[in-house]
Amino acid sequence: MRKCFVLFVLSLSLLAVNAQSYSPSRVVTDTIKSEVLGVNRAYTVYLPQNFDNNIPRNYPVLYLLHGMWEKNDVWANRGHLKEVMDRLVASGEACEMIIVSPDAGGGDPNVYQNGYFDMPNWAYEQFFFTEFMPFIENKYRVIGDKEHRAVAGLSMGGGGATNYGQRHYDKFSSVYAMSALMDIPELGAARFDDPNGKLAILTQSVIDNSCVNYVKDADDVRKNDLRSVAWFIDCGDDDFLLDRNMEFYKAMRQAWIPCQFRVRDGGHDWEYWNSALYICLPFVTRNFGK
Amino acid sequence: MRKCFVLFVLSLSLLAVNAQSYSPSRVVTDTIKSEVLGVNRAYTVYLPQNFDNNIPRNYPVLYLLHGMWEKNDVWANRGHLKEVMDRLVASGEACEMIIVSPDAGGGDPNVYQNGYFDMPNWAYEQFFFTEFMPFIENKYRVIGDKEHRAVAGLSMGGGGATNYGQRHYDKFSSVYAMSALMDIPELGAARFDDPNGKLAILTQSVIDNSCVNYVKDADDVRKNDLRSVAWFIDCGDDDFLLDRNMEFYKAMRQAWIPCQFRVRDGGHDWEYWNSALYICLPFVTRNFGK
Amino acid sequence: MRKCFVLFVLSLSLLAVNAQSYSPSRVVTDTIKSEVLGVNRAYTVYLPQNFDNNIPRNYPVLYLLHGMWEKNDVWANRGHLKEVMDRLVASGEACEMIIVSPDAGGGDPNVYQNGYFDMPNWAYEQFFFTEFMPFIENKYRVIGDKEHRAVAGLSMGGGGATNYGQRHYDKFSSVYAMSALMDIPELGAARFDDPNGKLAILTQSVIDNSCVNYVKDADDVRKNDLRSVAWFIDCGDDDFLLDRNMEFYKAMRQAWIPCQFRVRDGGHDWEYWNSALYICLPFVTRNFGK
Amino acid sequence: MRKCFVLFVLSLSLLAVNAQSYSPSRVVTDTIKSEVLGVNRAYTVYLPQNFDNNIPRNYPVLYLLHGMWEKNDVWANRGHLKEVMDRLVASGEACEMIIVSPDAGGGDPNVYQNGYFDMPNWAYEQFFFTEFMPFIENKYRVIGDKEHRAVAGLSMGGGGATNYGQRHYDKFSSVYAMSALMDIPELGAARFDDPNGKLAILTQSVIDNSCVNYVKDADDVRKNDLRSVAWFIDCGDDDFLLDRNMEFYKAMRQAWIPCQFRVRDGGHDWEYWNSALYICLPFVTRNFGK
Repeated sequence: MRKCFVLFVLSLSLLAVNAQSYSPSRVVTDTIKSEVLGVNRAYTVYLPQNFDNNIPRNYPVLYLLHGMWEKNDVWANRGHLKEVMDRLVASGEACEMIIVSPDAGGGDPNVYQNGYFDMPNWAYEQFFFTEFMPFIENKYRVIGDKEHRAVAGLSMGGGGATNYGQRHYDKFSSVYAMSALMDIPELGAARFDDPNGKLAILTQSVIDNSCVNYVKDADDVRKNDLRSVAWFIDCGDDDFLLDRNMEFYKAMRQAWIPCQFRVRDGGHDWEYWNSALYICLPFVTRNFGK
Repeated sequence: MRKCFVLFVLSLSLLAVNAQSYSPSRVVTDTIKSEVLGVNRAYTVYLPQNFDNNIPRNYPVLYLLHGMWEKNDVWANRGHLKEVMDRLVASGEACEMIIVSPDAGGGDPNVYQNGYFDMPNWAYEQFFFTEFMPFIENKYRVIGDKEHRAVAGLSMGGGGATNYGQRHYDKFSSVYAMSALMDIPELGAARFDDPNGKLAILTQSVIDNSCVNYVKDADDVRKNDLRSVAWFIDCGDDDFLLDRNMEFYKAMRQAWIPCQFRVRDGGHDWEYWNSALYICLPFVTRNFGK
Repeated sequence: MRKCFVLFVLSLSLLAVNAQSYSPSRVVTDTIKSEVLGVNRAYTVYLPQNFDNNIPRNYPVLYLLHGMWEKNDVWANRGHLKEVMDRLVASGEACEMIIVSPDAGGGDPNVYQNGYFDMPNWAYEQFFFTEFMPFIENKYRVIGDKEHRAVAGLSMGGGGATNYGQRHYDKFSSVYAMSALMDIPELGAARFDDPNGKLAILTQSVIDNSCVNYVKDADDVRKNDLRSVAWFIDCGDDDFLLDRNMEFYKAMRQAWIPCQFRVRDGGHDWEYWNSALYICLPFVTRNFGK
Repeated sequence: MRKCFVLFVLSLSLLAVNAQSYSPSRVVTDTIKSEVLGVNRAYTVYLPQNFDNNIPRNYPVLYLLHGMWEKNDVWANRGHLKEVMDRLVASGEACEMIIVSPDAGGGDPNVYQNGYFDMPNWAYEQFFFTEFMPFIENKYRVIGDKEHRAVAGLSMGGGGATNYGQRHYDKFSSVYAMSALMDIPELGAARFDDPNGKLAILTQSVIDNSCVNYVKDADDVRKNDLRSVAWFIDCGDDDFLLDRNMEFYKAMRQAWIPCQFRVRDGGHDWEYWNSALYICLPFVTRNFGK
């Protein structure tokens, strides 16, 4: 009889695995009830392989912030975070870690404010540091010190990551900012009629928390604090936010604060941020434990 | 009154555009009625910017083939083809071209066969060359000669692209094969009970159209024909199909047929194929018009 | 008898070559007698494979300018230009072209001035355009039109390339500037006691020919002229000249002149410039003939 | 008076340095008197920044082996090892380490044999492990355990590195093989008339120490030992040694020994090996201390 064959798309590395002791990495979306904000907020978390089977082990954590008009699951869905992480862990370029994206936007605009900073009636930064971070780091076996905690993000989340790293330098070993809203850009801004509208409030919070001015205004003590964090700024040459990123990097250089800076081909889009993960995740890995 | 600002995520390049004469690139899914197959088949096509406004202009064409278990729209949806093309055209690394993905799978398994070759009751290759290609190249203002036509694909579509380029060397200027099913792999195959099942028939068609054997068996005339095509083989180091790709490349070297070969980090997955587009599209562009 | 084997480090591609019709690429250093400068000046030229055997063929040309304190042969000796070109031509990423580096420095400081601009008693720019370019393009079978001529350079030569491309936009299809001296940097400058010293004169020529101001001061006619050239700016994040490059790119964006910009890892050193060739040579290739 | 400015090519990072406590990295060539070989042999060593000022600190070590027809200083002179290391250390991608290249060739062919293996009257491997390694690790404050020792090399040195890593798996945490002579290639070999000539002896030593056969012949114990080393195989698609590298990688996969494999564009040349350092040095860094 004629022999026939069928293809199985098998990962060779999976075949090598001992089925008994192995659990694959996974992405979970769950909810936290916030007293500070007075609402329930969603978050999405990447858990590395063997997280469930390796009970005694605690992990480093990366807070990975999304941009405006998007929400917590976008890093998994469009950033393809799990696929990227699985490859980089397999090649050894990234270590196994917990990666969390809280929801800082989306939802019902009649109820929710947007953004990573404290605003009237929306103390998001307070929520992040006093509620969300403790909740996550307790629930998911996070190591929980500065040496094993990083923050990254894109656009509004890149500004959030940078600003959190600046003012909470004692909490993060590294910051990776993609296409970051370091301040309101000179180009691409417009005036509001209603200063109390949600976008106006958000905009004011970005101005009040300018990452650029925070460096320009730094005295020697602050400069020294900022040197305790490893910095990486990554922005496309077609990005409308590039000017502020260049201004930020120039300020960092003048303040003698070591900082990596890259301008790669691309704009303010997901092809850029997906590719940025391949640089970001090894970078935060290298800076864990230092 | 306090000044307020709002952000607009604006592409600077778009701002520069003359709104009157510009139409953006777009992805369209449509259907062809096939007499050969006796069914309607879907296809997805990428049309470059200004396609609608630039009536006198004809374009090069790339046939971009999908893999098993997927269908025509996967290059657009998961490969992010439009985003990649738009960036590469903006940077000049890819030229404006038509990119077409026909459906060679999916659908109702009781009705449709799968794959790119002629099989009992499913003359897909005949359909492709005598119906689909003429239909597309007439409908979308394709230049339509060997010098301005390329074929690429992933997995089963990588094998299809390679095989089409081999036996129809007079039709394609270049071939880019990703994670290609060059033949049935030694590992990862299994026997069938029913040699007339759809998978068995597909498998047999792959064996009968082995890209590896086509090179190994080549005489001087065939070798010379194959040299009229520019070849690029790209396969991940964790891919279960790598062995056959190495065998293929070794045969090409021994036959003195120029061929690019890359083994990059990764497996048989969409992160690999999305990143492969950044190499593939400039490669086919360079070989248009030669 | 025991069989023994010896290794030959053979390029497989060389084996495929018909020995009769093939001549390899080569690097030649020669001299031009300049009436304008009143001295003999050296230059180094890369000639592509088959240049000597392919008499009817004319080639595109790239002027590749060196930096301060170096001279014409540094692109070949430390930039490894021939090795890079040979690979990129083999892979199809660069086309066969003539690449010329004139000497704009070095030599006896009591006799020679330094730099690419016209200075008191050293009309180098006049020499370049009225003597050197015609001499080269006649001697080496250069096509000799804007569409097939490019200019690139590093540091002082990057500023020279940019400035030549600006004021002689009708002569070059593309400009690639590496770590370019776009103007005297804010950091890293110092005053002179003797304004007639050679370094003072050179410095003044850079200020007078500021690439940054040339864009900032551009009216609509000039902006339109600059759009006829393809621009690429490439500067390391540790380079002391980065600030001026960022200022230049910002000015280009504000003037709506399309320009590629990259900031990669690295400083003002030859590892950076060697790696830049892998981007530069495909870029100028893509822009030949457009 | 007119103000004039002069350029200083200053590394900004250097400016930040406290001059009192800082010593730059450096490359030193020195000699060891070998009892085993009965001659003095040269070696070249890269010492990281602050090596001289940081007396209590011990360092990881990388043995970086050269190829045939070359000698110990080629990694520094043509590989530009110091420039690459300094950049990668600055960006955090490589850690500070000692990098040593012993002389396994060159010299007077009437006196010296060539290669990394034990041969009649030339017990190089014995020299390496019993004399050279202890000498270096004592002299240069090397940590000196498996977890902090790596071996890499190109061509003949890539085969040497692989073979050393195989048979001395208890000594190295990782192996990076570039364009490696894994065995005598099928193509590019030739017979000898004199089996006692130096090249014939060298060739025989490569056959006797085939890296490919060592994997193919491995039993479960050996496979397990090999899994204690991190492996990286890197070979150009135009390299005449590629076939054996593909054979090696295929054998590693079949033996389920994790191994990274890359085929990049290029041949058997220094542009390839210089660029390989940018992958090799972060790879060995990641595997130190595991």
